[in-house]
Amino acid sequence: MAQAGIAVHGGAGGRPPADDRPHRKALEQALEAGARALREGGSAVAAAQAAVELLEDCPLFNAGRGWVLHQDGAVEMDAGIMCGRTRRAGAVAAVTRVRNPIALAAAVMERSDHVLIAGDGAERLAKAWDLRFEDSAWFVTERQLERWNATARGTVGAVALDSAGHLAAATSTGGTRGQIPGRVGDSPLVGAGVYAEDGVCAISATGDGEALIRAVAAHEVAALVRHRGMDLGEAARTVLEYRVRPLGAHGGLVAMSAAGDIAKPSTTETMYRGWLTADGWARTAVGPGPAA
Amino acid sequence: MAQAGIAVHGGAGGRPPADDRPHRKALEQALEAGARALREGGSAVAAAQAAVELLEDCPLFNAGRGWVLHQDGAVEMDAGIMCGRTRRAGAVAAVTRVRNPIALAAAVMERSDHVLIAGDGAERLAKAWDLRFEDSAWFVTERQLERWNATARGTVGAVALDSAGHLAAATSTGGTRGQIPGRVGDSPLVGAGVYAEDGVCAISATGDGEALIRAVAAHEVAALVRHRGMDLGEAARTVLEYRVRPLGAHGGLVAMSAAGDIAKPSTTETMYRGWLTADGWARTAVGPGPAA
Repeated sequence: MAQAGIAVHGGAGGRPPADDRPHRKALEQALEAGARALREGGSAVAAAQAAVELLEDCPLFNAGRGWVLHQDGAVEMDAGIMCGRTRRAGAVAAVTRVRNPIALAAAVMERSDHVLIAGDGAERLAKAWDLRFEDSAWFVTERQLERWNATARGTVGAVALDSAGHLAAATSTGGTRGQIPGRVGDSPLVGAGVYAEDGVCAISATGDGEALIRAVAAHEVAALVRHRGMDLGEAARTVLEYRVRPLGAHGGLVAMSAAGDIAKPSTTETMYRGWLTADGWARTAVGPGPAA
Repeated sequence: MAQAGIAVHGGAGGRPPADDRPHRKALEQALEAGARALREGGSAVAAAQAAVELLEDCPLFNAGRGWVLHQDGAVEMDAGIMCGRTRRAGAVAAVTRVRNPIALAAAVMERSDHVLIAGDGAERLAKAWDLRFEDSAWFVTERQLERWNATARGTVGAVALDSAGHLAAATSTGGTRGQIPGRVGDSPLVGAGVYAEDGVCAISATGDGEALIRAVAAHEVAALVRHRGMDLGEAARTVLEYRVRPLGAHGGLVAMSAAGDIAKPSTTETMYRGWLTADGWARTAVGPGPAA
């Protein structure tokens, strides 16, 4: 039996909030939700999904409830999930009323022959599959908007390793402020913002989405591990420093190796991170803490 | 000065048509359009785009004019383009009335801060940028539908190397028959169906889109070249045989190395391919020809 584990993030970038206790609390709750799934024999996919759903429901982060205002004021969310065991993946882009985009992404993975579904087509599936919807008032309130203006952005994500040794990654976002309607970022894209492969690693990335796409960041971390035999932490830092930064961009990621090692580097001042230590304690960091 | 070059494809899969001369003729015309751009000092991006636009306009292939019937009869097209020099990329998904999706993808790359735009948002940009639109009758006719039923599917794509040594890749598709509305395949996704990086290679892939996404196929070819020092042909075959086929899937790709070597392997019975030989002749193949 592998040493099961989980790590989560609430996005990279922006300045640290004056009071980061609510953020840390939310990260701990997400870790606990994932850890509970793992303890109860759930798969890495179930654990990553459970953690991300909790972060989606938390208005402090830019995914699900608590999004980003788009250029025309629309609410658009993207999410992607990948199973390392089967290398199956599911993702949705530009959905607007599904409460938990990561749950819809997981349903696309499990119930359709496709990987990525965008817009109305995705919402029609969510209806057919009886997923929970919310109206736009649920996703954003005046208070959330003020808080957003005062603090940071933040895609959310999770990586998990279950006791059977399988890996999974999940990422969910409300997009980038002022983005063009229909813009799809890295979060739902396999190899960019989300990637998992048993025996290699699982990655959930966040930051400047366009650069993460162009660098195929998550898959490049896996490629360095597979082809160069790099240690996961070194691979993760190498991608951020030598593949993403040269594009004039910044970001961070959480990653889990096949052995359960966790890396969580960022090149930003702020990155919301949470992880379980080997003895089961939940740890969180927000400022420019140790890179990995 | 590098030895400029170009290769194109019209998709993989299905059975070879009884008469493949119209397909070969179209591939030759696409090569000639790309070669002309290169001769006139155009960039690899301009050459790849010119070749793909011609294939989009040709009703024999499943991109632009000549698409695939979706589950609900909608016409949806995806396209992506990437510049190896800058590693900038542009892509659109689920557009329905833009005549040349690859031109819109190129405009996203050149005129926006984003990489991928889906649906209405993409069409609004096309309008703002004065791109050419067509009504649905232009994209499909009864005759095309009959021909489609009788023959093959076929995403289109091109890879090019310009005389300054820069690489580019472009891919465009009308989707997969019977797909769910909003489904996005590998074609517009950086690292899946399209990838270019100077000094490494350019790739345009085609085939079972979901598997190409899950294998991050185009980026994996580049990873084998960069990290393993593999020859391009070997890298391309390795990805199709050992990363895509184990997912129960088939496909093909055209690829160009930084030195101008061309690889064009497929694991399908049919793949429409065209390339320029070193002495400038246009060559085409449709059946299960030499793999690379």
